[in-house]
Amino acid sequence: MHVREMISTHPDVQGNVAENLLICIEECYSCAQTCTACADACLAEPMVDQLQQCIRLNLDCADICAATGAMASRRTGSNVETLRATIQACAVACQRCAQECGQHAEMHEHCRICSESCTRCAEACQAALNNVQ
Amino acid sequence: MHVREMISTHPDVQGNVAENLLICIEECYSCAQTCTACADACLAEPMVDQLQQCIRLNLDCADICAATGAMASRRTGSNVETLRATIQACAVACQRCAQECGQHAEMHEHCRICSESCTRCAEACQAALNNVQ
Amino acid sequence: MHVREMISTHPDVQGNVAENLLICIEECYSCAQTCTACADACLAEPMVDQLQQCIRLNLDCADICAATGAMASRRTGSNVETLRATIQACAVACQRCAQECGQHAEMHEHCRICSESCTRCAEACQAALNNVQ
Amino acid sequence: MHVREMISTHPDVQGNVAENLLICIEECYSCAQTCTACADACLAEPMVDQLQQCIRLNLDCADICAATGAMASRRTGSNVETLRATIQACAVACQRCAQECGQHAEMHEHCRICSESCTRCAEACQAALNNVQ
Repeated sequence: MHVREMISTHPDVQGNVAENLLICIEECYSCAQTCTACADACLAEPMVDQLQQCIRLNLDCADICAATGAMASRRTGSNVETLRATIQACAVACQRCAQECGQHAEMHEHCRICSESCTRCAEACQAALNNVQ
Repeated sequence: MHVREMISTHPDVQGNVAENLLICIEECYSCAQTCTACADACLAEPMVDQLQQCIRLNLDCADICAATGAMASRRTGSNVETLRATIQACAVACQRCAQECGQHAEMHEHCRICSESCTRCAEACQAALNNVQ
Repeated sequence: MHVREMISTHPDVQGNVAENLLICIEECYSCAQTCTACADACLAEPMVDQLQQCIRLNLDCADICAATGAMASRRTGSNVETLRATIQACAVACQRCAQECGQHAEMHEHCRICSESCTRCAEACQAALNNVQ
Repeated sequence: MHVREMISTHPDVQGNVAENLLICIEECYSCAQTCTACADACLAEPMVDQLQQCIRLNLDCADICAATGAMASRRTGSNVETLRATIQACAVACQRCAQECGQHAEMHEHCRICSESCTRCAEACQAALNNVQ
């Protein structure tokens, strides 16, 4: 991804890239992919009837991660309150999904990777809030 | 849209459709379309250089509305805390966008319609929170 | 939804709303919701292990319908070749999903409704191609 | 991103990761972010009234890239015809956007980076079609 290059060439940014927000953007897009793929991998498992909650959390997490990644990529004008609330919602989604996937991490390697991706994204969201105020 | 028909035939719902959440889903999808179209109409205005903030809020609002509409459409398992936080973020985005579009409502008919759509969606989000706990 | 109101107030449209494209936009947003809900309802079925293909097609269809609905909502400038290719892809996705859901229509009411929604959307996409050239 | 790790642990994949499709997924998510950021950076330019077509193509490209990245991440069951048509639409969108951004590459660094990202994504889409049949 080219998040830093893009944000740093925005006409209003001028060096103030907001480091934590950059990381948050990358983690959001990455986590959106990971959760989409984990939902799909869970769906193909023979024991899919025990992974229904996991798939649901994966899909919810993918949706909010995609929205947050896009919204956090914008620097024109200002929409602080919305961005903060969205990043907070994303952090919650990632925490819940990390927890759920973590419970199947030993059995399903895709859940282990997804749980780690969600944990990183939740932390990146928390850290990014310092850059959004 | 066929929100009610779909939700009411979900195997776990059995009549408990959560009326306010149904309306919220419809308003979210509708507002996602309206905000996408308003951003595009603003972009075509001769005075686009005075509508930059409006376009930005429109795009943010479209993103979170789309995510919220999808997430609120799911009834398998449970993800209450995430759904609440997402609906709250959506309400904030819609309020801000309603306010901004409202300022150009007299000049641009698309902003007037969009402002009303955002207000309805913000109210639907607030009301839906009673159904999500 | 307020598709007609929004498109007809776009500064470049001036009455030439492209009737079939309006219907296509509405069907795309509607079908995105229906497919998202059908994937989720299938996921909650006791026989989920026989609905894996259906869920996959639902999710694919929801993704391309959402993208097509947004793209078809734009009238600023021109992106005809892209819009045509996207609408065609959406028509294919809807046809496949209608077919798959149609096979479970007698057993699952949500699949019946979804199959009809996909069929309408596929037809609306085909009709809209006349407006995009 | 962790595309390879996720796809290679899907229960149905078993080593047959489809190398070109992996690259396509990564480029699609990356290009979705780049185009979202480029639309926003163009919007903040003083000469925004000359970048309307560019912003429109950026937004269209972001939409289809996001849909394609998600769809191409799925390996459960099969949806070949839909995936092919979607990847082809994505390639068209990327080519058009690369071309348009390329025209402002000397003036706007974000357009230069975005043009390159779109070109890479278009090529990755073309190459991926060999893996989808």
